[in-house]
Amino acid sequence: MKSREVQLISRPDGMPSRDDFKIVETETGDPRSGEVVIRNLFMSVDPYMRGRMRDGKSYVPPFQIGKTMDGGAVGQVVVSESEDLSEGDYVLSSFGWREAFCCAGDRVKPLGELEAPPSAYLGVMGMPGMTAYTGLLGVVSLREGETVFVSGAAGAVGSAAGQIAKIKGCRVIGCAGSAAKVAYLKDDLGFDYAFDYHDGDLRGHLREGAFEGLDVYFDNVGGVLLQAAISSMREFGRIALCGAISMYNASEPTPGPTNLPRAIGLGLSIRGFLVSHYGDMQEDFMRDMSSWLASGRLTYRETVMEGIESSPDALIGLFTGANTGKMVVRLSEV
Amino acid sequence: MKSREVQLISRPDGMPSRDDFKIVETETGDPRSGEVVIRNLFMSVDPYMRGRMRDGKSYVPPFQIGKTMDGGAVGQVVVSESEDLSEGDYVLSSFGWREAFCCAGDRVKPLGELEAPPSAYLGVMGMPGMTAYTGLLGVVSLREGETVFVSGAAGAVGSAAGQIAKIKGCRVIGCAGSAAKVAYLKDDLGFDYAFDYHDGDLRGHLREGAFEGLDVYFDNVGGVLLQAAISSMREFGRIALCGAISMYNASEPTPGPTNLPRAIGLGLSIRGFLVSHYGDMQEDFMRDMSSWLASGRLTYRETVMEGIESSPDALIGLFTGANTGKMVVRLSEV
Repeated sequence: MKSREVQLISRPDGMPSRDDFKIVETETGDPRSGEVVIRNLFMSVDPYMRGRMRDGKSYVPPFQIGKTMDGGAVGQVVVSESEDLSEGDYVLSSFGWREAFCCAGDRVKPLGELEAPPSAYLGVMGMPGMTAYTGLLGVVSLREGETVFVSGAAGAVGSAAGQIAKIKGCRVIGCAGSAAKVAYLKDDLGFDYAFDYHDGDLRGHLREGAFEGLDVYFDNVGGVLLQAAISSMREFGRIALCGAISMYNASEPTPGPTNLPRAIGLGLSIRGFLVSHYGDMQEDFMRDMSSWLASGRLTYRETVMEGIESSPDALIGLFTGANTGKMVVRLSEV
Repeated sequence: MKSREVQLISRPDGMPSRDDFKIVETETGDPRSGEVVIRNLFMSVDPYMRGRMRDGKSYVPPFQIGKTMDGGAVGQVVVSESEDLSEGDYVLSSFGWREAFCCAGDRVKPLGELEAPPSAYLGVMGMPGMTAYTGLLGVVSLREGETVFVSGAAGAVGSAAGQIAKIKGCRVIGCAGSAAKVAYLKDDLGFDYAFDYHDGDLRGHLREGAFEGLDVYFDNVGGVLLQAAISSMREFGRIALCGAISMYNASEPTPGPTNLPRAIGLGLSIRGFLVSHYGDMQEDFMRDMSSWLASGRLTYRETVMEGIESSPDALIGLFTGANTGKMVVRLSEV
C-alpha cells in the first residue's frame, strides 16, 4: 500500500519551518504472518515533539535526520495477518506522520468499540486528556473547593484540566492567547475567570481571578506565567509542571523564575511529570472521561488540518496559537 | 537589670553593614507576678534574618526600624515570679539581640536538664538541626542508599543534614566556600565527596561526586547551585528548598534556574519548607539527635563571636562565609 510520510531533514534553531521537513512516498509492503497494515485516519502533533527535534538526551529519543517522524496516530486495520486484529479495527499507534504502515500486530493498541470519534483518542480520550487527569488527580491531588490556575487553557491539555477541576468542585482561572480563546474558556468551558496572557499585568489578573491566591497551578507554559503563578500561590500551594511551551523554541536559555525562594516560606511544592509516570491511573481515567463526555459535563474542541502535507504547519501552529483544543491532522476519511 | 540591645536603624540595600544597627542600653525592670527576668547566654544569628530586614510581607514579619531585633536565644532565669520557672533554669526564647529581658514566664521554653551545652540549643539541638532533620526525613523522605547533595554544607543546617544522610546510609556530596571547609566536610564529617563552589565547573563536580546522578538535593544556597543540581538529578529526584543564601543580599531579582523544564521529563519534585511546617516531628528529632550526639555519630562545630557588640558582624559573617557550623554570639558566661 502506498504511503506518504514526513521526514525531518534539518534541526530548527528557534521556530521550526516547513523547510525542516520533507514529504516522501513509500510503500508499506505486504504483511507477513502476525503483521498488519494500518491506514492512519488522524495523526497527532504535540508540543513535546519540538524537544525531539533537538539532538540531545531527553526523556524521549530525538527524531533522526532523514528518518520519518513518529508520534501518536489513530487508524484502521486494512489487511491483517494477525490473529488479534481484523480488518476495520480501530487502533492507536506511535508511528504517526505517515499515511499507512505495516507492523507487528502487537505494536498497535486496539481501541475496541469506540466511545468517541476516532480523533478524540489523540486528544481528550488519549494522551492529552490523561495528562490533564493525572496532573490534577495524581501530581497535585486536587481537592474540592480549591482555586486552580491553568495556563495554555484553551489547548488540548489545558481545556481538559480546567474542566476536570470544575467537575471536582474547584474555582478555575485560565489564560490563553486570544480574545476568542478567552471567550471559549468563560462561555463554553465554564471557567470562573479567564484572561489573555498578552494583557500586561499577569499578577493583577491572578489577583482579580483568585482573591485569596492559588492552591494549584497547572503549568503548560513556563516562563513569565510560572513566575506570576509562584507569586500568587497560597501557603502549601502545589504546582504541576506539565509543559513549558513558551520556552520550546528558545535558542538561548530562557530565564527561570526569580521568585523561587518564595516556595520556602510558603511550603510550595513544584512537581514535574509525564503522563507515563501515572500509567496505573489509565483505567480510572478512561472510565471517568468516558462518563464525563457521555453526560456532557466535559466537552472538547479540535483544530483539524487536512492532509499529511499540512502536518509541518500543524506542528508550527501549536507554537503560534493556531489551535483551540487538540490539533490533529486528518490523513484519510473515516 | 541592665541590658544592652541591638536595634535596626536602617534597611540595607544589598549586604548589611554595621551602620544599619545601633546598640542601646535599657533596663529590664522588675518582674511582676507570673513574669521572669532572663539573662541571655547566647543569641543566634541566622540567614533568614536578612529577609526580615526588608520591609514587606514574608513568612515572618519584618524587623521594625528603631526597634530591637529578635531571634533565638538561650538564657537563664535570674529572677522568677512565675510558678513554672526557678532561678538558674535554662530557657530558649525568641527575644534575642538583647542581653537580658523581662517577660511572662510562658513566653519562654524551659530546656529542662541540658543534654548538650546551652549554645547547641540554637544549633544542632535547635532550629537549624531540626531544619536539617525535617528537610531530609519529612520533605524528601530520604531512603537508604540514595545519593544526596547538600549545599552550604559546612553551615549549621548543612553540616547536620550531611551527617544525618550519612547516618541514614546515603552517599553524601557537599559543597562549601573554602578549602578548610571542604576538608572539614571530608575529614571530620565523613562526606563522600566535597568541593569548593568557587571552583568553576559545578556540574563537573556533581558528576564526579555522583556518577549516576542525584536522588536528593538539600538546597541552602539557591542560584547557580540549584541550577547545577537540577541538571544533575536522576529520574524522580527530590529537591528540598531550605534556603537561598546566595540571593538574600541581592538588590535586583536574581535569575532563576533556566533548566526547570527538566523537572517535567524526570518527574522531579521541588519543595520549599520551614521547620515550623513539621512541628509534629519535634519529639522524634529531639530523641534521635540526642542519641546521635551522645554516641558521637553526629558532631558539630560552632563559630562563637563575643559580646552583643559583635552581633552585627556575626550576622554579616553568615553571608561572607565567616562561620563553620552554627554562628552564635556569646552574651554572658555560663
